[in-house]
Amino acid sequence: MEGREFTVVGKKLPRIDALAKVTGEGRFISDIQLPGMLYGKVLRSPLAHAKILDLDISNAEKLPGVKAVVTAKDSPRKTFCIYPNLANNLILQDTKVRYVGDQVAAVAAIDENIAEEALDLIKVEYQELPAVFDPEEAIKSSAPRIHEEENNVAAYIKRQFGNIEDGFARSDVIVEGRFKSPSVAHCCMEPRGCVASFDLSGKLTIWSTTQTPHSLRQELAEVLDIPINRVRVMSAYVGGAFGSRMFMDPIDAIASLLSRKSGKPVRIVNTREEEFISSRTRYPMIIELKTGAKKNGKCVVRQAKVITDNGAYNNLGSSVTGNACSKLCQLYSVPNIKFDGFVVYTNNVYGGACRGYGNPQITFAMETQMDEIAVKLGMDPAEIRLINANRPNTITVSGCEITSCGLTECIEETIDRSGWKMKKSKKRKNCGIGMAVVMHGGSGGKFYWGDNCHISSAIVKMNNDGTVDVLTGSKEIGQGSDTVLAQIAAEELGVLLEDINILSGDTDATPPCGGAWGSRQTFTAGIAVKSAAADVRRQLLSIATDMLEARIDDLEAKNGMISIKDYPEKAVPISTVASVSYTHLGTPIIGKSINNDPWSSTPDPVTGFGNVSSAYSFGVQVAEVEVDTDTGIVRPVKITCAYDLGRAINPLLAKGQVVGGTLSMGLGYALTENLVRKKGKVQNISFLDYKILTALDICDIECVFVETNDGRGPFGAKGIGEPAMIPTAAAISNAIYDAIGVRVKELPITPERILKALKEKS
Amino acid sequence: MEGREFTVVGKKLPRIDALAKVTGEGRFISDIQLPGMLYGKVLRSPLAHAKILDLDISNAEKLPGVKAVVTAKDSPRKTFCIYPNLANNLILQDTKVRYVGDQVAAVAAIDENIAEEALDLIKVEYQELPAVFDPEEAIKSSAPRIHEEENNVAAYIKRQFGNIEDGFARSDVIVEGRFKSPSVAHCCMEPRGCVASFDLSGKLTIWSTTQTPHSLRQELAEVLDIPINRVRVMSAYVGGAFGSRMFMDPIDAIASLLSRKSGKPVRIVNTREEEFISSRTRYPMIIELKTGAKKNGKCVVRQAKVITDNGAYNNLGSSVTGNACSKLCQLYSVPNIKFDGFVVYTNNVYGGACRGYGNPQITFAMETQMDEIAVKLGMDPAEIRLINANRPNTITVSGCEITSCGLTECIEETIDRSGWKMKKSKKRKNCGIGMAVVMHGGSGGKFYWGDNCHISSAIVKMNNDGTVDVLTGSKEIGQGSDTVLAQIAAEELGVLLEDINILSGDTDATPPCGGAWGSRQTFTAGIAVKSAAADVRRQLLSIATDMLEARIDDLEAKNGMISIKDYPEKAVPISTVASVSYTHLGTPIIGKSINNDPWSSTPDPVTGFGNVSSAYSFGVQVAEVEVDTDTGIVRPVKITCAYDLGRAINPLLAKGQVVGGTLSMGLGYALTENLVRKKGKVQNISFLDYKILTALDICDIECVFVETNDGRGPFGAKGIGEPAMIPTAAAISNAIYDAIGVRVKELPITPERILKALKEKS
Repeated sequence: MEGREFTVVGKKLPRIDALAKVTGEGRFISDIQLPGMLYGKVLRSPLAHAKILDLDISNAEKLPGVKAVVTAKDSPRKTFCIYPNLANNLILQDTKVRYVGDQVAAVAAIDENIAEEALDLIKVEYQELPAVFDPEEAIKSSAPRIHEEENNVAAYIKRQFGNIEDGFARSDVIVEGRFKSPSVAHCCMEPRGCVASFDLSGKLTIWSTTQTPHSLRQELAEVLDIPINRVRVMSAYVGGAFGSRMFMDPIDAIASLLSRKSGKPVRIVNTREEEFISSRTRYPMIIELKTGAKKNGKCVVRQAKVITDNGAYNNLGSSVTGNACSKLCQLYSVPNIKFDGFVVYTNNVYGGACRGYGNPQITFAMETQMDEIAVKLGMDPAEIRLINANRPNTITVSGCEITSCGLTECIEETIDRSGWKMKKSKKRKNCGIGMAVVMHGGSGGKFYWGDNCHISSAIVKMNNDGTVDVLTGSKEIGQGSDTVLAQIAAEELGVLLEDINILSGDTDATPPCGGAWGSRQTFTAGIAVKSAAADVRRQLLSIATDMLEARIDDLEAKNGMISIKDYPEKAVPISTVASVSYTHLGTPIIGKSINNDPWSSTPDPVTGFGNVSSAYSFGVQVAEVEVDTDTGIVRPVKITCAYDLGRAINPLLAKGQVVGGTLSMGLGYALTENLVRKKGKVQNISFLDYKILTALDICDIECVFVETNDGRGPFGAKGIGEPAMIPTAAAISNAIYDAIGVRVKELPITPERILKALKEKS
Repeated sequence: MEGREFTVVGKKLPRIDALAKVTGEGRFISDIQLPGMLYGKVLRSPLAHAKILDLDISNAEKLPGVKAVVTAKDSPRKTFCIYPNLANNLILQDTKVRYVGDQVAAVAAIDENIAEEALDLIKVEYQELPAVFDPEEAIKSSAPRIHEEENNVAAYIKRQFGNIEDGFARSDVIVEGRFKSPSVAHCCMEPRGCVASFDLSGKLTIWSTTQTPHSLRQELAEVLDIPINRVRVMSAYVGGAFGSRMFMDPIDAIASLLSRKSGKPVRIVNTREEEFISSRTRYPMIIELKTGAKKNGKCVVRQAKVITDNGAYNNLGSSVTGNACSKLCQLYSVPNIKFDGFVVYTNNVYGGACRGYGNPQITFAMETQMDEIAVKLGMDPAEIRLINANRPNTITVSGCEITSCGLTECIEETIDRSGWKMKKSKKRKNCGIGMAVVMHGGSGGKFYWGDNCHISSAIVKMNNDGTVDVLTGSKEIGQGSDTVLAQIAAEELGVLLEDINILSGDTDATPPCGGAWGSRQTFTAGIAVKSAAADVRRQLLSIATDMLEARIDDLEAKNGMISIKDYPEKAVPISTVASVSYTHLGTPIIGKSINNDPWSSTPDPVTGFGNVSSAYSFGVQVAEVEVDTDTGIVRPVKITCAYDLGRAINPLLAKGQVVGGTLSMGLGYALTENLVRKKGKVQNISFLDYKILTALDICDIECVFVETNDGRGPFGAKGIGEPAMIPTAAAISNAIYDAIGVRVKELPITPERILKALKEKS
């Protein structure tokens, strides 16, 4: 990049919040204690589908220690959704509940026990209605309607590129299958929570586990019917999010209502049980996929029918389904594509964003079928992927402009590093190796209608000693974005990492930013920070021209000095230049930048054609497993990953994304995680019953980065957050096939399903 | 101004923090409670001048509940002063103490009682040295030296404009006198305090009663020897400042040291006693003034010798003395001036900024002599002031560019409104009426060497509903600057006051600003906010050109709408334009402005010639008094004021400045306030003994504003904070002369002094 060596970027630097995190100094929501603060609890529906006939809060209000009880009556009747035209959810339901966990009332009391007790005193008279939980049942015209005003098909997404009839006719081999993916929870270490505090002037200050402070600001203003400048979303440490805190949760608004009514700050933090019952899940999908390829392995056609369980309310179901379609059109260069997506209301909890956003579901199907085609053609599964791999500087059939692309290199790296060829040729019994590929947006995009969603802006102030304050609306949620943005600013300015002070998230102080979603912060917020820093650098260099008697183009800023290129002895410290600017010129150095992501576009609403992201990241995972054919237990042995992330701004943090994404989230999705429901009620509401993988369950991982130096990304970088977890399930599934010759097409691949498949095979 | 009616500016709007203040919601330093917070206490010298032979903190450290004890050893040995080349003070003294109250050690404990107890356990062995308290004694070569390396004349300021010999030779009347002014305290309702919290990464966050957050940030970074980006000064409500919190106080740094050593947040809040003993005072001055005038009343020459009691350390003594000189050269157009100022160390507490900054002292002398000249010439004291009054668009002998000037109108207004002529002609026994005039900088200026001191910058963000966040580094200290700046932003943007959200003070979030000093915030920060808002307005209008099919010059923003001038029916709401900018253009609207006060200059160090402020405010006070010649008690009856403040952005708040400045601070300075010391130890350490005027002591006031619409000020405004209190003492003194024919030239004008003067007269 730029033909120069980096001094801060690309270094394995410890995260800037490391000390605060390991010592407990960092304040998470549960650590926030405001004077007079109350504790809020939400009364949730025990029924999956029912009319609310009566709601009596009088006894709860009388309980000593209770300071406020709120119902729908306390709230402006405003539906909410980041897609306003799809909004059909309320923060507190008034006439009907539509899933077990739907919120009907809430209490603020002086402690949590009293608040719980008060919930028991609220009388709700329900009239139970027939419910439906299976989207394939719900789609039928005979099914109970979840929303009176429409049938249960919340959205139908139809896309076609090329000609699939022709594609299949020209195919030498065709595979077909039905893939099912479960409802899974994000399992953040920190449960969702917030502390809301209305002051007497009517201004709301809220600390929230949000990933998107500026969007939350706007959402709360809308749902509470107050101006945006009356809402301040504050920064707090966030213990994971993975999409689950992408937009407003009803508890953010409920805590605000309770604060307004009680006149006190109110904290609501989910219990782990509430987290499992009420928070957004990954959208479960049923995918019927048919793929055709030529003898030479070249994939020529894909057809998918997807049924997405939207749950009870609109949130991101159609968007996630659309993104699954988008990936169907992007991964490998396939000229003929047809997609029919049905987003179906059920009486399950509604879904939300979850790392990968529809891509893990469709990649599981696509990459299983690539394997099946390879088997049918007698090809090496790695070879068929090399044949089909996306290439740099190409445009996909759906209009995605692939700039940098290191997929081929990634495949080659994993072949080498995993010992692929040897292991494919010398098979050990019940041991297998499998590969899967991922392509994912590495920059967010224009997915949302929220005004701030796709923007990133930044302000950089240089102090008179050359140290720097960076104001960014982005959000550190544990992924390390504050550190990465500080590295970008330091590199651009030619100062040290410790010279950078990051102020992120606080919506009053920071300029608008879409926040943490779609693997966008490094790229999109990174560009904003880099440009604002460049604005400061230009001002510095301009002042230094006089001091060094040089033209601005001959100067560079590096290691705290401004010097004449190639004459490092002619130099002046940046701190001196900054001080001169303040003292002699009377000019504080302030840089500003707005990045409205000019390269991406909202796909055409009719054709679906468009460049959904400004950059695309690629990756490959090779999984090795051992399968116990008596018990059906799959033991992952090793995963070898290679990722094209453009450039690793901080290889340590990037590796953290890949390791966590693969070994925890990816493997869990592949093998164990599943929200089990009975009449819509989640049964596994603790980590005893909901199985996430622990350190004892996981396996070795090797991870290498292919740095393609993307021309648009800051210092060449692209996002890595989501791609990390997407291909794992397919890689594991393909490895299982390699080990024991069966394919399980429903996630998670449990021992029961392995045994069932083995039985069916034999 | 701009030939248009204002919608927000000029309105008597309630201050935006009114509710928070009257309900107690606003959090002052004493309301800040952080988890694990400790309480700090400072051990102060009981002696006025002594060597520190030994300091033993071991017993204090052992006291249960004590978490940290700090001495000079815990601090980098860095002297501090906003004029670095004058710095000779330490936050904790190591070898010597130089006044009663000088800080030698400090303790942080789990409560204040334990901290107090621990102070008693610290053993300090002093060797007392001869001390000197009277600056006229201290200036002698035989006096004990306060600082070994220099004699007691800390600074000598010599200025000469014109030719005074010639001036006096041409004078028809000459008056001469010696004027003394006392050491007085600021008497803020809230004592000085701070809460300092170092985190483990070495970042200091401090809430302080500072008037100048950005300067404090730099001062703390320097004195603690850490980078500026490692210090965050946060906003808190401040209960008055009046100059006393203009720059760092040792307790800000001491609390920081205690926090670093204990690993906990530490709060130090002065007791009222400490406030009287240790906080900066108004510099006492002895002024020998000689003035010559022509028969026609025209003042032609002034000569002053000033001895300023600098106290034990350098702070602002030479600057305040220089400003007294500056006013000697500015008030009225006097062509021949000579000034000799001696700034003299004593073993008194060192002084600091105090509303007026040397001007109340010199104005008392100058305006008394104007009266004396009028008497000698048999002229009406109002008439002589009209003759000598400054005029608009003139340059003073010392180089001050007077742009707007409504002094003549102010004199005429007070003549009319006070019934001056009738009261001068029909005298009642022991009743008198007196007039005094003030000229003062109305915009701050380039007084300080601190890098941020004279800068103001602002960032304005418009939200997508048309509401606005204003980021300003200025400081609300009770004067109402947040409200005034919000009005300026609202007027410039054409939105309502409630559409503005002000974020001020927080140094991480806000761009640099000199803060609240020198009556500068309305003017200097106001220009920055207005310009940043104008930047936003231009962006808005530019977007609206398409929507309204009009040229940008034909558009105006007003009352929340952008419309075609003269065709108000062709309009679009600002909220719509903002939303279009976010949604359709993907551009958040952010404005930025830096005001480096281009019109003012640092006076030439040799000649003193220069334009010290960008604008000058003027005012007149007419005082009426009754004097009891038996007791010597002076009863103020009424004060009639007229002020040229350019424009009253908020007449309610401007009146608040005048009423408080005149009736509390001005009258107190005239009649009662005086720090009485015995061997350097302040004797009147409570409001029982230090007499500030109460509601029962004060009198009626009438106040009128002359709006001269300054061409440089925001919407024509100039500062009013300091001018409010400056002329009161002279007006009262002149009224006393009018009542009983004696002049007391030493402040405060106590009954004893009145009786003494009456005795001398008779």
